[in-house]
Amino acid sequence: MLTLDKQQRKWNAIAKQFEKVIGKSGVVRRKEELLTYECDGLTSYRQKPALVVLPRTTEEVAALVKICHQNDVPWVARGAGTGLSGGALPIQDCVLIVTALMKRILDIDLENQRIVVQPGVINNWVTQAVSGAGFYYAPDPSSQIICSIGGNVAENSGGVHCLKYGVTTNHVLGLKLVIPDGSIVDVGGFVPEMPGYDLTGVFVGSEGTLGIATEITLRILKTPESICVLLADFTSIEAAGAAVADIISAGIIPAGMEMMDNLSINAVEDVVATGCYPRDAGAILLVEIDGLSVEVATNKKRIGELCKKNGARDITTASDPETRMKLWKGRKAAFAAAGHLSPDYFVQDGVIPRTQLVSVLKEIEALSEKYGYAIANVFHAGDGNLHPLILYDNSIEGALEKVEELGGEILRLCVKVGGSISGEHGIGADKKCYMPDMFTEADMETMQFLRQVFNPKGLANPGKLFPTPRTCGEAARAVPAKLFEGVEQF
Amino acid sequence: MLTLDKQQRKWNAIAKQFEKVIGKSGVVRRKEELLTYECDGLTSYRQKPALVVLPRTTEEVAALVKICHQNDVPWVARGAGTGLSGGALPIQDCVLIVTALMKRILDIDLENQRIVVQPGVINNWVTQAVSGAGFYYAPDPSSQIICSIGGNVAENSGGVHCLKYGVTTNHVLGLKLVIPDGSIVDVGGFVPEMPGYDLTGVFVGSEGTLGIATEITLRILKTPESICVLLADFTSIEAAGAAVADIISAGIIPAGMEMMDNLSINAVEDVVATGCYPRDAGAILLVEIDGLSVEVATNKKRIGELCKKNGARDITTASDPETRMKLWKGRKAAFAAAGHLSPDYFVQDGVIPRTQLVSVLKEIEALSEKYGYAIANVFHAGDGNLHPLILYDNSIEGALEKVEELGGEILRLCVKVGGSISGEHGIGADKKCYMPDMFTEADMETMQFLRQVFNPKGLANPGKLFPTPRTCGEAARAVPAKLFEGVEQF
Repeated sequence: MLTLDKQQRKWNAIAKQFEKVIGKSGVVRRKEELLTYECDGLTSYRQKPALVVLPRTTEEVAALVKICHQNDVPWVARGAGTGLSGGALPIQDCVLIVTALMKRILDIDLENQRIVVQPGVINNWVTQAVSGAGFYYAPDPSSQIICSIGGNVAENSGGVHCLKYGVTTNHVLGLKLVIPDGSIVDVGGFVPEMPGYDLTGVFVGSEGTLGIATEITLRILKTPESICVLLADFTSIEAAGAAVADIISAGIIPAGMEMMDNLSINAVEDVVATGCYPRDAGAILLVEIDGLSVEVATNKKRIGELCKKNGARDITTASDPETRMKLWKGRKAAFAAAGHLSPDYFVQDGVIPRTQLVSVLKEIEALSEKYGYAIANVFHAGDGNLHPLILYDNSIEGALEKVEELGGEILRLCVKVGGSISGEHGIGADKKCYMPDMFTEADMETMQFLRQVFNPKGLANPGKLFPTPRTCGEAARAVPAKLFEGVEQF
Repeated sequence: MLTLDKQQRKWNAIAKQFEKVIGKSGVVRRKEELLTYECDGLTSYRQKPALVVLPRTTEEVAALVKICHQNDVPWVARGAGTGLSGGALPIQDCVLIVTALMKRILDIDLENQRIVVQPGVINNWVTQAVSGAGFYYAPDPSSQIICSIGGNVAENSGGVHCLKYGVTTNHVLGLKLVIPDGSIVDVGGFVPEMPGYDLTGVFVGSEGTLGIATEITLRILKTPESICVLLADFTSIEAAGAAVADIISAGIIPAGMEMMDNLSINAVEDVVATGCYPRDAGAILLVEIDGLSVEVATNKKRIGELCKKNGARDITTASDPETRMKLWKGRKAAFAAAGHLSPDYFVQDGVIPRTQLVSVLKEIEALSEKYGYAIANVFHAGDGNLHPLILYDNSIEGALEKVEELGGEILRLCVKVGGSISGEHGIGADKKCYMPDMFTEADMETMQFLRQVFNPKGLANPGKLFPTPRTCGEAARAVPAKLFEGVEQF
């Protein structure tokens, strides 16, 4: 351990090196300013970084990472800081590399349906940049007006439209990366068919543990000719779940298919008063249908019939953008609304095979009763991606611990029925302890070996994704020298 | 070097170990029988393996691979042996692990649209197994009635329908793997959203260099309500190319969109006499449209109009399965037909951005004249995935070398315009020397490190995918002990 004074001198020296690369204005050192960066969207964990740096180019990122590498300083990359699993949570004595100034759209190629962006570009801007020409970017996390593409890549973000169009990894064609030794590597390319190992696929969703993406080539899609939103209200979750099953069985793949339960409906109506969601409904379904006008019209009719068959009391549809937005408004505000229902809430994110929807929701209800905490359910029903919102009061001692235990039980339930502990929010700091519920030692070891390939010193986002310490942190740091000794010979 | 006698004794001992696992009938040693296995679909390279083994289960594969690992014997996995890049080509003194007896369909879950198969299951059987219930498996290489799913996974195979539905990697959800030390590892799962690194994505397309998949979980799709095939004939490739561009620009994504030039058309008519393809056409387009009946009807009309606008002389459409098959017949027989045009032909496989179609085809024509070999073009126009067929006579000395040089020039042309050296046939033994045209040293080194994670002794399919020797073979074999020494400590 260095003494405090030595620590200070070390950080002064490192800051000076950083300043040489990006100037004084790019290095944040003042305690008050560092406060902004002490957590991401997972606010229950907080840790101030030692330094924050704000590069603007790939070359600057490479130079900064190289300095970290040479000084054995761990670093964490941060996009907009909206992540919900603590992926961008600083660790003690780390450098936080923030992409907030890397906001340039570098290239737009409409003919080939490609756009190249820096990682700090906000998700929504991509669509804005190409919508005039009739294109859009499909992955749309709820936070799309504030979250960054770099963060989306790190977390392999999803969203409402991922039912039909897939998650971020299905839309990233190529990446320019700075890997943890400061080298710049290109993976993937301009066309999807690339030989060799799919390193682009490995990087997307790697949560900052393999390096930092500094240029991202995305696929953009043609805006559909017609879009329609259908709202169906049901007296029970079972009925809504049966409608979902029937829609999928009919071979219809809506652009999105979301469900909200009674508690969420009322939370939303209390807060944003959409006036569209009936407060006495057991559940509502929001289905977005897109495509050719004839296709949308046909599917609207078919979906309506399937909902009616399963007991829908009422069906509302909207095709003009304004009314569509109104129908979506409540769903988009659901997380925020939960914050009004109780002093605190805890969002869980798990995936189950779609066929298990109703039975798993019943088990969640039983867990809610067992623990004595209300749970509001808002979720991507078509994907089986659940988002139970556990309502609690953090000022009551021991509440957070109990809620985390309850959250853990829900995740284990997801795994038990063949699902996953994360649908779109990532593992980060929050869920790494559940990884062994899902993976064997051998599986995780294989991933760890892969991590060491990119990140031999273990400096990029240590302590995330894998449970510490056995399969993380120190262990990873012990290996690299040896690994690279052997490798550098050839 | 072992003397011949010692070699013989070594192989006798290894064969005995194999026989203990899979019985005498599972081990092929007789020279005449080994002949079957000396090449795959790339017939210009031949090499007999030392032994061939035919396991039936994951456990048997694991035991065989462990024996190879313990005896430092290299091994190559082989599916149906239809690959076109020599991925399953044996190397000297290797064991060939053939999955021909692993043909069981292990599980069908229609409700969740999943099927679990052994690697030796033929591509077409997957669709056959579920078509009665209204489902199908989308990736459809031309060889689909004989190629195996294991081989498709190794090569990340494509096919006509990959324009709309993506290649193999988009349809593989989970894999049970035997990695080169003989361990059994599960990657991916039942739901697509899995945390951690996307090892499933890495494995698909890794051409047998990371291990062998013994159980494969595939996504199956609902059979579309309606399918229509449209044949349009044009007086020039330029006109057909312009129609392709217009169709894509209109936001239509056909299930498949194939182009054939005059030489291919005549080859096909000579051999299979479809009677559908006009011999005087400069190029024909075959477009498959699927979806709801209303959608197919609308798109058929739109595509027809766009073809007419670009000078199509005639348009034929077919909706009933028999006539559809008739329109496709010539395209499916195109490679075989090329064999009738000249004593030998060489299939190239490269990808270009779709917008470069016409200019690249012109350059290929110029190369054809420069080298003096006719080139027939048959390709997935919607994906920009070219398949130039170079016609030559192997009995003329030096012809193969010149043709390979010409093939290389075509690949470099693909890379130059932002494309790729392989669309769907893989790199294997055939194209590894072109990898440096596409990747930097740093890129390939990163892939090599990854290879070592799975394959530290370099025993799984050595000499494939990467150019030897610097980034392959011996070097890879020197590292592992060290790598794993370090790693095993924690």
